[in-house]
Amino acid sequence: MIILIDAMGGDHAPLEAVRGASLAAKEFDAEVCLVGKEELILEIAKKEALDLSCIRIYNANDAISMEDPPISVRSRPESSLRVGFDLLKNGEVDAFVSAGSTGALHTGATLYVPKINNVRRSAIATVLPFKTPVLLLDSGANISLSPEYMQMLGIMGSIYMKNLFGVENARVGLLNNGSESTKGTPLQTQAYELLSNTTNINFIGNVEGNSVMNGICDVLVTDGFTGNIFLKTIEGMGKFFMSSLKPILKKKPLAALMIKKDLIKFKKQFDASEQGGAPLLGLARPVIKAHGSSDAKAIKNAVRGAIKMLESNIISKTEAELSIALEQNN
Amino acid sequence: MIILIDAMGGDHAPLEAVRGASLAAKEFDAEVCLVGKEELILEIAKKEALDLSCIRIYNANDAISMEDPPISVRSRPESSLRVGFDLLKNGEVDAFVSAGSTGALHTGATLYVPKINNVRRSAIATVLPFKTPVLLLDSGANISLSPEYMQMLGIMGSIYMKNLFGVENARVGLLNNGSESTKGTPLQTQAYELLSNTTNINFIGNVEGNSVMNGICDVLVTDGFTGNIFLKTIEGMGKFFMSSLKPILKKKPLAALMIKKDLIKFKKQFDASEQGGAPLLGLARPVIKAHGSSDAKAIKNAVRGAIKMLESNIISKTEAELSIALEQNN
Repeated sequence: MIILIDAMGGDHAPLEAVRGASLAAKEFDAEVCLVGKEELILEIAKKEALDLSCIRIYNANDAISMEDPPISVRSRPESSLRVGFDLLKNGEVDAFVSAGSTGALHTGATLYVPKINNVRRSAIATVLPFKTPVLLLDSGANISLSPEYMQMLGIMGSIYMKNLFGVENARVGLLNNGSESTKGTPLQTQAYELLSNTTNINFIGNVEGNSVMNGICDVLVTDGFTGNIFLKTIEGMGKFFMSSLKPILKKKPLAALMIKKDLIKFKKQFDASEQGGAPLLGLARPVIKAHGSSDAKAIKNAVRGAIKMLESNIISKTEAELSIALEQNN
Repeated sequence: MIILIDAMGGDHAPLEAVRGASLAAKEFDAEVCLVGKEELILEIAKKEALDLSCIRIYNANDAISMEDPPISVRSRPESSLRVGFDLLKNGEVDAFVSAGSTGALHTGATLYVPKINNVRRSAIATVLPFKTPVLLLDSGANISLSPEYMQMLGIMGSIYMKNLFGVENARVGLLNNGSESTKGTPLQTQAYELLSNTTNINFIGNVEGNSVMNGICDVLVTDGFTGNIFLKTIEGMGKFFMSSLKPILKKKPLAALMIKKDLIKFKKQFDASEQGGAPLLGLARPVIKAHGSSDAKAIKNAVRGAIKMLESNIISKTEAELSIALEQNN
């Protein structure tokens, strides 16, 4: 299998992307490629003494930045993202990993990557590292979406958790402002109705923002706007707590020393670089969004995520099970 | 000034409400009253040996629970909430504090409490205890609202922070899924446009869920649905971190002992009972929502919040400044 990494995407690109590619090529039994400015990539390899001999480089003279409008992926055919999508579409690579702009990645996936049957757009799925892992989707791709699409997210999320996390009969919750079925905007009440009537999933009803952490559900369905606010608030609170602990521990260095190991372990659980990136579900080829702040290890772990998706055959399983589920519910 | 407490609202009512009334009557130079089942209140007073001689009790034979639909406040005239609103409306009391159902409190305020000029519905304002306090509004009252109303929230929030927290030229942010002006649903882009063109406030633009904690703004404007998700996620993460620290500290009791005092202080900063409750802004009379889990101290602090609102004359100041602001911006 061939995994392509966007060398130009992310806050620390291209350096960390190139380093990550090198790590992934060493560690995994997969062919790793890079797409980006070849000259720059080779320069980094020389400076960092990285052996890229087994890593194929696809040249792309342009790069879409975080500030560029997502639709740039259409007007800039020489950008690394666009070249990457073309390679994926043409089957020259099997999966694509990028730490670049979420909007551009999602737009490119919508425009250039085939979808599985019954699905017209992809959604970003993010695993939240709570007591038990929670799959949040859509975590930011589609600002507005239909109740029918939210029903599909519930089905696709269940299939994902079963196949990649071994969670049978995954508990699916709907992120809402209260537990009663009447809660939320019309989007939530309609999605609630559809999800309740979906026979193939274990829908447990509405879930509030403060219950998700307690392991109440395995899949959390929401629109991309709310999902983005939810995910970033979790991220911000994680950083806030760690930075609030610092001055307390600084005053008591001995105490800090005693609990350091466990604290690092806990922090690591929340570290985005430890996750395998966030897959865009609904696509017929694996596209993985790595966190914007990805370092080499995070890129490597996102490659691991892509390999897992390919090995588990999750995409064709999703396509088959989704079509059965939708048939039974219509 | 006369502050009325709903004896029947909250998870620990009536016990903690009665205890809180007793604490407030002792501590503050204000007349404290209770509304609720008189027999029950007197029974508690006897059992707890509380002297309620200076606390007037308004009897109300009915009580609206968390499970009742908010509109119950209309069909149940003998409920403590409804009797309380009637007393407030008729000027028999100056402010109303309740830890009961947010929905019923907001519905009752909409139906029975006069609004200030230019405002038709109230919004819940919650102070978030970050590095610098952040006023979140609407934190849950109005599931859907107009861009014009969000503009008013920005203005009212600025006035509140100036008068009650001494923050001049408060930085107003719009909670959104990205910092660019084009981000969000049509509600956010239209609110952004209106807020940018409001001359009397210091609008700093969109604020993402992970930046709020860094003291980037003093007022955070959002709709009640997103505000609820945001607030509950903060609450849930606070509890999650504290419960994750516990096993780490349990393994190292000496370290726990060393940092215990500072940790308690930090936890206290986040304790809902330490806050003065959440005012419903836009009303012509102070109504304070105390947290559903309020204990006696939380009820007492909510009474303090009501007193502060009355003493600072914030309502008439808001009415005057809001009308000037809207005039200048039209």
